[in-house]
Amino acid sequence: MAHIDLNNDKPGIVGLFHFRPDTAKPLCELAETLLRGPSPLSSGEREMIASYVSYQNNCHFCHTSHGASAAHHFDGDLSLIDDIKRDFEQTDISLKLRALLDIAKKVQKSGRDVGEEDLRKAKKAGANDREIHDTVLIAAAFCMYNRYVDGLGTWAPEDNEAYDEMGKMMAQEGYMRDRPGLD
Amino acid sequence: MAHIDLNNDKPGIVGLFHFRPDTAKPLCELAETLLRGPSPLSSGEREMIASYVSYQNNCHFCHTSHGASAAHHFDGDLSLIDDIKRDFEQTDISLKLRALLDIAKKVQKSGRDVGEEDLRKAKKAGANDREIHDTVLIAAAFCMYNRYVDGLGTWAPEDNEAYDEMGKMMAQEGYMRDRPGLD
Repeated sequence: MAHIDLNNDKPGIVGLFHFRPDTAKPLCELAETLLRGPSPLSSGEREMIASYVSYQNNCHFCHTSHGASAAHHFDGDLSLIDDIKRDFEQTDISLKLRALLDIAKKVQKSGRDVGEEDLRKAKKAGANDREIHDTVLIAAAFCMYNRYVDGLGTWAPEDNEAYDEMGKMMAQEGYMRDRPGLD
Repeated sequence: MAHIDLNNDKPGIVGLFHFRPDTAKPLCELAETLLRGPSPLSSGEREMIASYVSYQNNCHFCHTSHGASAAHHFDGDLSLIDDIKRDFEQTDISLKLRALLDIAKKVQKSGRDVGEEDLRKAKKAGANDREIHDTVLIAAAFCMYNRYVDGLGTWAPEDNEAYDEMGKMMAQEGYMRDRPGLD
């Protein structure tokens, strides 16, 4: 049960969207633009960063649902996403994605932890300014979504199948459908 | 100088808004709704929570500008805001605001740190569900804004007068004017 009476039984952030629809609107638009809008990073890569940061914040609802969404973008390979969440340095991802996840890892702790050396490595690996920008904002945004979901003690499904279905919807239909008033 | 080339010389988050206007839109709308929209908490109280969390995250641009905005809501008393940022437990604020700042303090570290005892204390001090919700979301949102501003190494004015002017504009005119394309 959530810390407050949400007047609905929807899980995770969806229950919060229905509790306060006026803040749900920009929160859904931010997720849609950031994860699915125009970007040099693919939606799969962006969902992967979102899931990685949520895992570091120990937010079960977010890291599992965005992990499932990332997997749907990558032909259903959930094992790669799980490996990245646990220790991306041991996986066979590109040097660029590794450098961007390094930056996301710093942002998850504090924006001030990102240093010149991180930028130099990312740029040397081929990351452009827009990719670095989007990585930082995705990591920062999930530090918000995770705290919102867990700070109000929302409930999260235990069943992995529920997340697979959720991830599929997120990957295929995006985030505007979560806005109250649209269902 | 910021970590990436923003193509403008605006300080803090404003420079980032102009770099990527499509994410600026929901980010400005979230700040406007959360800090100035309908809420049982006054805008001054909400700016105070925003400034307190930004101070804990060591984000100079955000804690100073939102502190100045909070002071403008409270008849210009910046010393109270400064005392709250440093150690609100030693200040003469209401039990309810103290309990809400306690929750914000937990959220700044992790959403999972908020426990039943924090909720019990806040409710006993008279906080309702909506006040608790808004406190958690403000604290969470500033964990995002702070990381966005510092993770991309934006510049912040040193001069206190610049923040006083900024805080006055934020208190009087809000956040929609920061959206690129409106100036």
